[in-house]
Amino acid sequence: MSTNGPTLPNRSDCEAGDAADPLAAFRDRFVLEDGVIYLDGNSLGALPKATAGRLAAVVEEEWGRGLIRSWNTAGWMDQPRRVGDKIAALIGARPGEVVAADSTSVNIFKALTAALQLNPGRRVLLSERGSFPTDIYMMQGLEILLDGRVEARFVDAGEIGAALDGDVAALLLTHVHYKTGRAWDMAALTRAAQDAGALVIWDLSHSAGALPVDLNGAGADFAVGCGYKYLNGGPGAPAYIFVAERHQAGAPPALAGWMGHAAPFEFDDRYWPSAGIERYRCGTPAVLGMAALEAGVDLLAEADMAALREKSCRLGDLFLSLTEALCPDQGFAVACPTDAAVRGSQVSLHHEHGYAIMQALIDARVIGDFRAPDILRFGFAPLYVRYVDVYDAVATLAEIMRNRAWDRPEFQVRAAVT
Amino acid sequence: MSTNGPTLPNRSDCEAGDAADPLAAFRDRFVLEDGVIYLDGNSLGALPKATAGRLAAVVEEEWGRGLIRSWNTAGWMDQPRRVGDKIAALIGARPGEVVAADSTSVNIFKALTAALQLNPGRRVLLSERGSFPTDIYMMQGLEILLDGRVEARFVDAGEIGAALDGDVAALLLTHVHYKTGRAWDMAALTRAAQDAGALVIWDLSHSAGALPVDLNGAGADFAVGCGYKYLNGGPGAPAYIFVAERHQAGAPPALAGWMGHAAPFEFDDRYWPSAGIERYRCGTPAVLGMAALEAGVDLLAEADMAALREKSCRLGDLFLSLTEALCPDQGFAVACPTDAAVRGSQVSLHHEHGYAIMQALIDARVIGDFRAPDILRFGFAPLYVRYVDVYDAVATLAEIMRNRAWDRPEFQVRAAVT
Repeated sequence: MSTNGPTLPNRSDCEAGDAADPLAAFRDRFVLEDGVIYLDGNSLGALPKATAGRLAAVVEEEWGRGLIRSWNTAGWMDQPRRVGDKIAALIGARPGEVVAADSTSVNIFKALTAALQLNPGRRVLLSERGSFPTDIYMMQGLEILLDGRVEARFVDAGEIGAALDGDVAALLLTHVHYKTGRAWDMAALTRAAQDAGALVIWDLSHSAGALPVDLNGAGADFAVGCGYKYLNGGPGAPAYIFVAERHQAGAPPALAGWMGHAAPFEFDDRYWPSAGIERYRCGTPAVLGMAALEAGVDLLAEADMAALREKSCRLGDLFLSLTEALCPDQGFAVACPTDAAVRGSQVSLHHEHGYAIMQALIDARVIGDFRAPDILRFGFAPLYVRYVDVYDAVATLAEIMRNRAWDRPEFQVRAAVT
Repeated sequence: MSTNGPTLPNRSDCEAGDAADPLAAFRDRFVLEDGVIYLDGNSLGALPKATAGRLAAVVEEEWGRGLIRSWNTAGWMDQPRRVGDKIAALIGARPGEVVAADSTSVNIFKALTAALQLNPGRRVLLSERGSFPTDIYMMQGLEILLDGRVEARFVDAGEIGAALDGDVAALLLTHVHYKTGRAWDMAALTRAAQDAGALVIWDLSHSAGALPVDLNGAGADFAVGCGYKYLNGGPGAPAYIFVAERHQAGAPPALAGWMGHAAPFEFDDRYWPSAGIERYRCGTPAVLGMAALEAGVDLLAEADMAALREKSCRLGDLFLSLTEALCPDQGFAVACPTDAAVRGSQVSLHHEHGYAIMQALIDARVIGDFRAPDILRFGFAPLYVRYVDVYDAVATLAEIMRNRAWDRPEFQVRAAVT
C-alpha cells in the first residue's frame, strides 16, 4: 500500500494493507476491546494476552506455594539480569550490558552520577530544553544535591552541537522526543559528544521496541528506558539501564543498594559492587512487575524489528496524509517531522483546542493523548495498530472537527493525568 | 496459654492456645499449603487469598480494558498516596506523611539526602555496625558520591549514644535488627539523637505490621520500610517513606522525578516539588506491585495491633522455651533477646552448622532462613502462624538434631539466596 503517492488511500486500501501486513498476526496476541482504536501505546502499551496467566502463575505458584524458596527455585534473583539480556537484544546491546531495575528516573540518576565519576574534572550535565521532564528534573535534583560541583545546562535542540564544550561531562538526550516524535541520529550525536570528551546517556523510552536501536553500533556509553510503552510491560513496569561494558568497572554506584553487592547474602558491612551490570541493581527487584515486563518483552522479541519499523513509518505517513486531506483548514499544524526517517512511532499535531479535541476523540473511542500546551499525540505500536485503525481514527477526527463535537464543557475539564 | 511458666507446654496446650486465639480467623485469609510451616514471614510474607483476584482485576480490567484512561479512572495516580495513608495508620503517622514508592534502598537515599539538607553544617551519617546491609551500603554510596562532604560512620549498638556528637547530621537505625530481632526503644533513641541535634531515620522493614510503631509519638523525623514482609505485599513490593509533616517543605528532593513535581502533567522545564509527601515520589509508580501491596495492607489493617503484638511475643517465647527443652546440648546459642519486650517478631539462634540445619528444616517443610555467618532465623507473622506450628517446628528441629539429619552433603551447598 502506498501512502505517499498522489492518490489518497481509502478504507479498502487500508484493509488491503492489513491483509498484506507481515505483522498482522501479532494483533491477536493482545487484549484489545472491539470498537476501541488505541493510539497511545507510546504512553502505555496494550496488555499481551499471555501476561495475565504468567502473572497469575508467579502470584499463585511462585509466591503462594514457593514462598521464600522461589528466590532460588523460580529464578527471582536472576530475573533483572535475564529480562535485561532480553531487552539488550532489542537495543543493540550485548548480554550483560542491561539490567531491568527501578524506574527510568532512578536509572537516569544512576547514569548521571556514574558519568560524572567517569569524567572527573568536568562539571556540566547537558540536555535539551523541552526534553522529557523527568530527564530534566533528575538533572536539576542532582545539581542541588551536588551543590555547586555540577551544573545542569539546557539548550535548544539545534544548539546541542555548539554547547558541547570542554566542561560537558555528560549529554543526556531522549532518542525520540516525547512531544514531537523527532528522532535524533544516535550515532552522529554520540560521536559528536564523545569527540568533545563527553559521555552520552540515551533515554530510549520513546524508541525501544518501535524502531531499531543500535547502542553498541553507535558506541553509546549509557542508556535508560521504561518498560511500559512499546515493551508492553504494564503500568509502572520496571525500567532498565544499559552501561557499555567498558564503563561497568569504572564507577562505584551512587545508589549502592544491597542487590548490587558482589555477594549480597554475605551480609558484609562493606559495599563491594558486583563486577558487572548487576552493580546497577539497587534494592529488591519488583518481582511481579518484572514478570509482566518479561511477558511483554518476550512477545516483542518474536517480531522482526525492520518490519516493525517499516510498518510504523507507513502508519505515521498514512495518518499525516489523511489528516491533511480530511481535516483541511481546521487549525491543525503538524508538530512532528513529516519525514518518517527522522520520526519515531508517533505523530503530533498542534491545535489551540487540543485538549478538548482529544477528550472528544477519547469519548468516540479513539484513544490518543494530549501534551501541554497544545499537542495531540497519536502513537502507532506496530504490533497491534492496523492501517484501518488509522483510517477510522482520522475519519473520526474529521467528523469531530466538522461538527465541533469537541466544543462541549465537559471536554474542557482537565484530568489529573493528561 | 502460659509459655513462661514452669511447665513446658505440650502440643495440646498449643492447640488450646490456637482455639482461644482472637486472631485465629486471619489464617484462613492466606494461601498456606498443608504440611508447610512457614516461619519466614519476616522475609517474605505469605500470599493473601484476596491478592490474586485484585491483581487480576488490575491487569485485565484496568490495564487491559481501561488502558491509559486508568491513570485517572482507576486511581493509579493517587495509589502511592492512598496506600501510603493506609500504611501511615499502621505506624503512627498521619495521612499525608507516608507515600508508597520505589524500594527501601532508594527511599533510604531520599531520607539521607533530605536529612543532610535539613541539617546543614553537619557531615556525619551515623548507623550501627552490622545493621541491615542496604542501610549501610546506601550510606557508603552517598559518602562516595558526595566525596568528602559527608562521612558514613558505623559504631557498635552500645556506642550509638556516645557517638551522637555535634557532627552527626542523621542517625539511621533499623527498628528491629534483621539478624538478632532486637528492637530499639524508638522514643528514647529519637530523643537522644534529637537532643544531640541529629535527625533520625528509622528503617521499619522488620517491625511495621508485627509490632506497634508510633512514629509521631516518638517524634521521629523520617522512616522507610519495605512492603513484602509483615505487610504481605508480595516479592519486591513497593516500599514506603515517612517524612514528618514539619520537614516536608524543607528540603528539595535529591531524586527529583517527574511524579514528585507539583504539576507533573504541565511538563514544565523546571522542577517544582509538590508541597507535601508527594515530592518523595520519584518516577512512575509500579501499579501492579502497588495493587498487591494494597491488598496486603488492607488485610493487616483489619487486625488489632495490640493483639498482634501479644501473640507475636507469645509465639517467640514458646519457640525459645521449647528449643531449650527439646534441643539441649545441641550447640545452639540464643542470638536474640529472651525478653519479648525488646524483641521483634522473630527469634534467632546461633549454630556452627546453621546453614545445613536450616536446609534440613526446609527439606522437612519447616521454612525459616539463614543469615551468615551462623544464624538461623524464625519469624512469626501473627496473622497466620499458630502455636501448634511453633510446637511442630521445634519438634522437627529436635528430631533433625537427634538424627544428625542435617549432616548430608546436599545441605551444605549454598544457594544464591539464603
